[in-house]
Amino acid sequence: MKELTIGIDVGGTSAKIGLVDEKGKIQKKTEVKTLKVNNWKQIINEYLKPIDQWLAEGINVNGIGIGTPGFINKKTGELNNAANLPGLLNAPFVDYLKDKYKIPVIADNDATCAAVGEHIFGAGKRYKDFLMVTIGTGIGGGLILNDRVYRGADGYAGELGHIIVVAEGRGCTCGNRGCIEAYSSATAIIKRVRDGIKKGYITTYDKVDPKKIDAKLIFDKAQTGDPYSLEAVESAARYLGRVLGGIVNLLNIESIIIGGGVAAAGNFFIEKIRFYLVQVAWYSLTHNLKIIPAELLNDAGIIGAAALLFEENL
Amino acid sequence: MKELTIGIDVGGTSAKIGLVDEKGKIQKKTEVKTLKVNNWKQIINEYLKPIDQWLAEGINVNGIGIGTPGFINKKTGELNNAANLPGLLNAPFVDYLKDKYKIPVIADNDATCAAVGEHIFGAGKRYKDFLMVTIGTGIGGGLILNDRVYRGADGYAGELGHIIVVAEGRGCTCGNRGCIEAYSSATAIIKRVRDGIKKGYITTYDKVDPKKIDAKLIFDKAQTGDPYSLEAVESAARYLGRVLGGIVNLLNIESIIIGGGVAAAGNFFIEKIRFYLVQVAWYSLTHNLKIIPAELLNDAGIIGAAALLFEENL
Repeated sequence: MKELTIGIDVGGTSAKIGLVDEKGKIQKKTEVKTLKVNNWKQIINEYLKPIDQWLAEGINVNGIGIGTPGFINKKTGELNNAANLPGLLNAPFVDYLKDKYKIPVIADNDATCAAVGEHIFGAGKRYKDFLMVTIGTGIGGGLILNDRVYRGADGYAGELGHIIVVAEGRGCTCGNRGCIEAYSSATAIIKRVRDGIKKGYITTYDKVDPKKIDAKLIFDKAQTGDPYSLEAVESAARYLGRVLGGIVNLLNIESIIIGGGVAAAGNFFIEKIRFYLVQVAWYSLTHNLKIIPAELLNDAGIIGAAALLFEENL
Repeated sequence: MKELTIGIDVGGTSAKIGLVDEKGKIQKKTEVKTLKVNNWKQIINEYLKPIDQWLAEGINVNGIGIGTPGFINKKTGELNNAANLPGLLNAPFVDYLKDKYKIPVIADNDATCAAVGEHIFGAGKRYKDFLMVTIGTGIGGGLILNDRVYRGADGYAGELGHIIVVAEGRGCTCGNRGCIEAYSSATAIIKRVRDGIKKGYITTYDKVDPKKIDAKLIFDKAQTGDPYSLEAVESAARYLGRVLGGIVNLLNIESIIIGGGVAAAGNFFIEKIRFYLVQVAWYSLTHNLKIIPAELLNDAGIIGAAALLFEENL
């Protein structure tokens, strides 16, 4: 019988769990609450309920991949620095699952999962070396170098969201100042637009409930030429282009894949990022550089987590 | 008979050429002028004179490694972007040497050679992943990732000197503005000190011929507490720490090795770089990070070029 791989996309509110086939298609999926308890086994056991049911139905499972916010330390397999997952911090859940199911279990940061998912099943199939950038509430990243995920010394490589783009610049959620996440994440773009409205700027948002201003609305308005929205998008692209241009200089990568919520704006945003990137990177390194949108969209988290197992067996 | 490897360290004025043994020790070396002619074969043939003599003496040579300024395109094997080597630009000298001697020939950028040299024979032996930074007239770099040199799509990876550290900042020799090379190279440090003197600042340099102000003098004065010199060194370290902190966030490397002329200042400069780096990088990524001086000093260029062959056979 066909073997399937389980992907678990863990979030602070819930985990999306799915069965992924060898083509990267989801055969079954479900969503389970992340319990707000200080007991990691209880949180994990809740996630395992649908898995145990699938196994009871006789589904043949060959491994479990787990994507999480924060960092997975590759030496210990434990979760570090995930502010919205306090219950799972430093918990040995990878070993727990290996023991329980006697199958391979791999966990990694969600942006690294996105990179691996794109590499095995999406826009990254064509590239040996690429940087994945996920732009949403925050900015994350993952690196594929020489056709393999590059994890660095502890497993934290690819996390570009807290690279400083403006010395002593805007405050960031991480506690530092000037991180690219504070300039180019969806959160930063929305904040910029809302802040101006609060200050009384005359904008086209005067009939919009400030709470309903989201990245999609801002990008939609920017695309129709609304100057106030365009300025917010342009600013985000300028800072991101600057950081990505530095990374292109350093790594001479073939491609940058843009994923996450903001990626839905597609080429409109990507062309702006490219415009600023080429101003700061060496020409020799950019004339063949492809900047492209991610291909795995809604279920990227589940597929990316499952793809960790496929990557291991490449 | 013992086999030796030839290392050629090409520069705009001369090439240093040596015979390197399997322990990275130089058995013989010489220096040959880089002819100022617009004929690449003539320049190369001049370099080959001592080599042909060594071969005539019966020395057993197993390969030739060549380090050059600029970029070696890994697809074509040709030299790009080397302003001070116009005669060798876009010349197929690697193929020419392979044809002539029927032995392996590899060329790469001099900072990449420095990285490979440190990895095989020097301070990088202990590390699977590290960034080499060479600080002298300019700033160069090379990357060892997963125990191999990482060259990127075209062979240009590691070149961090033109990463922008200040948007629209100081003019750089590359034509762009704000590159780290314009802030933290020996040239930049010397320029800062000389410029202040020209402006009439009261300094401890009043009895020094401005032409004799070099990086060594500035670092020596800084180490004894001279505030004007210290400010120049501190500024260079601050900008460099900022760029390196971003790279640490991105790559989660184990170590940074500092080489080039400025590296002679050793731990004095390195401790300052670390001071600024830890302010911009994630704590989790810096507490195990080693920043150390290069071990191969005077003959690093020859040994690094020869090491390209050793790296290939790892």
